Amino acid sequence: MERTEIESLGEFGLIQHLTQNNETRQASTLLSVGDDAAVIDHFGKQTVITTDMLIEGIHFDLMYTPLKHLGYKAVAVNLSDLCAMMATPSHITMSLAFSNRFSVEALDEFYEGVYAACEKYNVDLIGGDTCSSQKGFVISVTAIGEVTNDKFVTRDKAQVGDLICATGDLGASYIGLQLLEREKRIFLENPKVQPDLQEKAHVIGKFLKPEPRLDVVEWLQEQEITPTSMMDISDGLSSDILHICRQSNVGCIIYDEKLPIHSETKEIAMDFGLSGTSCALNGGEDYELLFTISQADYDKIVMSEKISVIGYITNPDEGTQLITQQGNKHKLVAQGWRAF
Amino acid sequence: MERTEIESLGEFGLIQHLTQNNETRQASTLLSVGDDAAVIDHFGKQTVITTDMLIEGIHFDLMYTPLKHLGYKAVAVNLSDLCAMMATPSHITMSLAFSNRFSVEALDEFYEGVYAACEKYNVDLIGGDTCSSQKGFVISVTAIGEVTNDKFVTRDKAQVGDLICATGDLGASYIGLQLLEREKRIFLENPKVQPDLQEKAHVIGKFLKPEPRLDVVEWLQEQEITPTSMMDISDGLSSDILHICRQSNVGCIIYDEKLPIHSETKEIAMDFGLSGTSCALNGGEDYELLFTISQADYDKIVMSEKISVIGYITNPDEGTQLITQQGNKHKLVAQGWRAF
Repeated sequence: MERTEIESLGEFGLIQHLTQNNETRQASTLLSVGDDAAVIDHFGKQTVITTDMLIEGIHFDLMYTPLKHLGYKAVAVNLSDLCAMMATPSHITMSLAFSNRFSVEALDEFYEGVYAACEKYNVDLIGGDTCSSQKGFVISVTAIGEVTNDKFVTRDKAQVGDLICATGDLGASYIGLQLLEREKRIFLENPKVQPDLQEKAHVIGKFLKPEPRLDVVEWLQEQEITPTSMMDISDGLSSDILHICRQSNVGCIIYDEKLPIHSETKEIAMDFGLSGTSCALNGGEDYELLFTISQADYDKIVMSEKISVIGYITNPDEGTQLITQQGNKHKLVAQGWRAF
Repeated sequence: MERTEIESLGEFGLIQHLTQNNETRQASTLLSVGDDAAVIDHFGKQTVITTDMLIEGIHFDLMYTPLKHLGYKAVAVNLSDLCAMMATPSHITMSLAFSNRFSVEALDEFYEGVYAACEKYNVDLIGGDTCSSQKGFVISVTAIGEVTNDKFVTRDKAQVGDLICATGDLGASYIGLQLLEREKRIFLENPKVQPDLQEKAHVIGKFLKPEPRLDVVEWLQEQEITPTSMMDISDGLSSDILHICRQSNVGCIIYDEKLPIHSETKEIAMDFGLSGTSCALNGGEDYELLFTISQADYDKIVMSEKISVIGYITNPDEGTQLITQQGNKHKLVAQGWRAF
């Protein structure tokens, strides 16, 4: 494979190279890449802004993460935060730091994924920064979206009696990561062993190429359902529902048997000596939506195959509980970020 | 000095700690730190967005950069990009990655600088991300500003005959950096030698604590002067004027004797065997504004002590030239980014 050194292009040549096929799709993009800053017209809508940083060795491992998937995922996880506000993504900025072990071709592959996500979600890449790092690949994305005035949904307005809903299925991404980590160990011990991941496409796909649930946001808007609270599931359901409960000053009951867990997740979890439930509760990186709705919206929600009702909001005194299939109660405990 | 380990707070505790005194000043900030994303109302104005990444060992050296100054500068350099569009800064997001050699107290010091810059420039910190890094301190800032519809100024509309203007003085930051690098070497050789930088406050200050020229943006607005093109000087005047020339498809003549260079810069440059002119042309990190105006605005500009007219825009055939004090012509050459 060809290898073009980044220094052969220089900073401005590199930016020019990486952005030459950058299309703008949004009428609101008045000025894109190439000046001190970009300019957006919001046409009277409110703007929703989020930002995330991804660090090699902490958030991703290039040994089993194809660069194209990484580019796609870096965009997707930010768009997921916008979806969690009921906002429609419109723009991103993308800053990168990389060492000289990266070639122009490697960056091209990464940007292929970035542009694929932009195309799929109708988002314009309007700015960024590229610089060198002494070690490791660093990605920082800021995503911008829009909402009709005051139609954004926060985490702090869940009401007692509201139904708790989750989209898609949970725990798959965590199991996908466990599989990839296992294959990495096997490969490092014996590089001749080829992995067979064909029948594991769902869990691997959920980990490597998560999709923000813009489809669900649009469906909720069509159905005129406004969640009372919403966030995306990035740290694991247990940890994330606690944010809603704390910020809304309520409690919750979640039913184990209602948790949406893919059969592939359950099967492979068993191989690892894990239960599907614990993966769903503590796995993280699902990038599904977690939201609460008024009971009056139940009849509408039940029509959607994408959404599961997994419990309900209680008085704060009742705490945050999981009801097992045997009817036992367990306190939900956050098992999120332990990066330090 | 007390040292609190970051892990003792956890991610959410840390964010809570760092943002507990975060004030919002802008009426447009509808939702700030603490949800999936922030929400801004633009009240019909257009939004200007820029982003920059700063990497330890590439962009800054913690050996001679106090963390408070670094926090201030990380904000300031982004606001400078907004000023370069004639935009008024309103919001920032700030993402950080740091290793466990950082204590909570160290981050507090950094944020003191961040908040000081926010206060001075009337900007709200509305979001961000904190994560661990395996090595080094990484800072990514996105800054958001506003302009009256279509009043932003790009780099691509300089016209033949326009006057070229620069704010403040140039080259000082580069000389400040040379001094600090020299003191570092001396210190590493003999830790007992104490630096005497008292009479070097201007150049050190320009390097450690640059100020975005929002004052000049506001003055231009008051005077109803709209530059035909504008950018900020971050890579050095030579490199930066070439951007304007290339993007506007024009040439330029710059007069050496018109370059605004502080007497302290000239004196210390001599110690290093450098000319003030070469520092001004190639130094970089000035964060002054470089802009072009119609000759009709000359009478207004000449009233400002903050602005120097340093040359004029020519036909593209005439190239990009520096006229020395002896009347010789030199081609201006970009000496910017050589980080790879």
